[in-house]
Amino acid sequence: MVNDKAVSGGLEWRVRMADGSPSEVLVPESRVFQRICWAIVGPVFSLMRKVRRFFSKAWDVGVDDPRKVMHCLKVGVALTVVSLFYYMRPLYQGVGGNAMWAVLTVVVVFEYTVGATLCKSLNRATGTFLAGALAVGVHWIASQSGERFEPIVLRTSVFLLASAATFSRFIPVVKARFDYGAMIFILTFSLVSVSGYRVDNLFDLAQQRLSTILIGGSMCLLVSMLICPIWAGQDLHRLVARNMEKLANSLDGSVTEYFKDSEDKLENEEDTGKKLKEYKCVLNSKATEEALANFARWEPAHGRFSFRHPWKHYLKTGASIRNCAYCIEALNGCINSEIQAPEYIKKHLSGVCMGLSSQSSVVLKELAHITKTMRKSSTIDFSVEDMKGAVQDLQDALKSLPTQINTSKQPVGEAPQEKKMDAIVAHTTIPLIEVVPLVTAASLLIEITTRIEGLVVEVDELARLANFKP
Amino acid sequence: MVNDKAVSGGLEWRVRMADGSPSEVLVPESRVFQRICWAIVGPVFSLMRKVRRFFSKAWDVGVDDPRKVMHCLKVGVALTVVSLFYYMRPLYQGVGGNAMWAVLTVVVVFEYTVGATLCKSLNRATGTFLAGALAVGVHWIASQSGERFEPIVLRTSVFLLASAATFSRFIPVVKARFDYGAMIFILTFSLVSVSGYRVDNLFDLAQQRLSTILIGGSMCLLVSMLICPIWAGQDLHRLVARNMEKLANSLDGSVTEYFKDSEDKLENEEDTGKKLKEYKCVLNSKATEEALANFARWEPAHGRFSFRHPWKHYLKTGASIRNCAYCIEALNGCINSEIQAPEYIKKHLSGVCMGLSSQSSVVLKELAHITKTMRKSSTIDFSVEDMKGAVQDLQDALKSLPTQINTSKQPVGEAPQEKKMDAIVAHTTIPLIEVVPLVTAASLLIEITTRIEGLVVEVDELARLANFKP
Repeated sequence: MVNDKAVSGGLEWRVRMADGSPSEVLVPESRVFQRICWAIVGPVFSLMRKVRRFFSKAWDVGVDDPRKVMHCLKVGVALTVVSLFYYMRPLYQGVGGNAMWAVLTVVVVFEYTVGATLCKSLNRATGTFLAGALAVGVHWIASQSGERFEPIVLRTSVFLLASAATFSRFIPVVKARFDYGAMIFILTFSLVSVSGYRVDNLFDLAQQRLSTILIGGSMCLLVSMLICPIWAGQDLHRLVARNMEKLANSLDGSVTEYFKDSEDKLENEEDTGKKLKEYKCVLNSKATEEALANFARWEPAHGRFSFRHPWKHYLKTGASIRNCAYCIEALNGCINSEIQAPEYIKKHLSGVCMGLSSQSSVVLKELAHITKTMRKSSTIDFSVEDMKGAVQDLQDALKSLPTQINTSKQPVGEAPQEKKMDAIVAHTTIPLIEVVPLVTAASLLIEITTRIEGLVVEVDELARLANFKP
Repeated sequence: MVNDKAVSGGLEWRVRMADGSPSEVLVPESRVFQRICWAIVGPVFSLMRKVRRFFSKAWDVGVDDPRKVMHCLKVGVALTVVSLFYYMRPLYQGVGGNAMWAVLTVVVVFEYTVGATLCKSLNRATGTFLAGALAVGVHWIASQSGERFEPIVLRTSVFLLASAATFSRFIPVVKARFDYGAMIFILTFSLVSVSGYRVDNLFDLAQQRLSTILIGGSMCLLVSMLICPIWAGQDLHRLVARNMEKLANSLDGSVTEYFKDSEDKLENEEDTGKKLKEYKCVLNSKATEEALANFARWEPAHGRFSFRHPWKHYLKTGASIRNCAYCIEALNGCINSEIQAPEYIKKHLSGVCMGLSSQSSVVLKELAHITKTMRKSSTIDFSVEDMKGAVQDLQDALKSLPTQINTSKQPVGEAPQEKKMDAIVAHTTIPLIEVVPLVTAASLLIEITTRIEGLVVEVDELARLANFKP
């Protein structure tokens, strides 16, 4: 990588030179020649740099998740195997020369996760079957209505059914689960009913299309389930657990960052910064979670997940996690705000606040552990109690805050000659505006614990629904 | 709808009777007969109810956005027109009997927005062209390498290229813009190079596939751009403006809700509740915005949007809007928290807080208006200044809060015999724990204004990039 950068840096320098700012004064002819040279070579180099950057990105993608590379090889294998239908004469003739549909199905249906592949295969097969049957029926009606009306009947039926099926794709229930099936329905119906006008053996066409699609679909399923299967359910399960861990890290990190002394702040800056921002990807996890949950429910039992695993409940858990994340976002905003509480007040609360945040992240980590291992924890109730205790401590500290400041700066109840001074102190000892960010942070921390309690309920419910072991 | 419910309620009652709990004692035979009857009729009715519910949902979808109905009719029209290639002999023979690909293209490529249709059409055409050319080339190489090696060369090339193209779909840049193109590349390459083993006129096959795809694609584009076009860019533009309005409503609504007297709370409960929750759909708008922005950049100039409209910047503006929304979420949490400030303290801040929130929502609404009308506003700077003034007012009110409470409950600096009492008052006059929710709300309001200022910068930048008129 270092080498890489050095090279591209060098290129940049050279290209910049081509822009017309050479440090030496050259003779005009050589300058013109050089310019022309660089006008040609420059873009080539710039393109090469882009290509190199593209490949380095691609390399990163592969290194980050080797399963993606595996998936590509799986697609290659499935395609190679299904193309045997072309290379072996008996197979080719067996499907009446329509092997093309099998290849097409593999390309279109093979998805990253088993659930997505299953969803698409079943949708494709069902859509094709229904549309094929309907098209054959409509074709029979059309052929009975005479040569003149046949195209009219066919075209009207295509228009009506295509419009209706397209509309059904807007309905949320259909969109979530049968979107692809509806598209294939339109496709097959149009193809079969319109082809019927030219093709004689319409029934054969429909049947061959169905059988080749079944071959292609089952090939995809076999490859995707037998060779290093990637389960959407497992991914969802891990995502939810990891999101809880991320929240725990962010929460702990940001509170520690806020309360630690300015000297400590320099060390591990980068590491903390990374941890602090982990919650950010939780904020936008809804779409991913919904897609995974949608695919997961098509998947058969695998690993520790039974067929009726409550995938839907993961969405609720995810929403609860995001609820916490929103609050952590606001907490971060208040931590980074310009107005900061004076150190001496901060010190007063730092212990309880850090205690609460670490207790909260203990609970979050324990929830993540419960989810990950799918085992009920005997200690979670104690942790939650500890967290509630820490909330109480923080509230007590908040209650005692003004008095303490009062006494530390000016002990009350002394000689009467200090009366006037006392009045001034009462005026200055409670600089509410100074404690505002601190109080806000404390209050948001308490709000976060409330939301974590909501998350505990959701995880409990998940444990009940999915029969987590004790 | 009322009628509907009555009917279904009746059915439920009757079905429940079938479960075996009739209020009257019947003679056994008739009971058995009735049970059998209901075992048959019950599921039918329940199915009918489901179907009815499905259709009522579908009806709602259509009523909410009539453009969706229009889109369905457009798909029907495009399919009917393209099927002319089957019905008219010269057209059918013109594409060598491969009219199927044109129908297929229409079904697969026709999307809701013009941008999405364009993106898919261009991807499909480019992917097909590149893959077709490459496949013809590979086929020539294979045919030169002897009959024995031909299938091996073909299969290896399919394996390698399919794997590589599948992998490219994981790279973010490709995934965002050329995902469909990569899939079509694999598809066409496999089809053409594998078919080459059986089909003699490979070049004709590739060329026919390309020309039919071009016919289908241009048909889709014509219909989608000429008949009531639905522009992704316009949708994105509206979405961003509407999101700002939603924030304004929610912010204003929730602060008013918090500060208004408990007596007023009862009226307009439902209306306010709806307004309060409007910000919720802003929280998860990222995926929609990204998809729309991605499609919008494929679209030609339309309406008030030039070809180089800064669609990418809408994503930044959207992120800024969501930033505000996260804070409003936290504000709502704190408003609904169990600990509430006592009324007399609330009253003290209610004026300034409501002033600030209404000023903030004025700014938000003005930003929405600027975006919507695409005209720079001369008053936005004043509104922002007013908002900053309101922040200052709130901060001043916070500063004066403890003193005021102090003086209102107990005037300081009186007879020395009240000394002890004074000490107690100093203990009780600043019940910090009681003002915590109020201070938090105020602090979050200030944080929201900071974020709104960030949004003002983004909208300014948008106005500059998109040359909004003054």
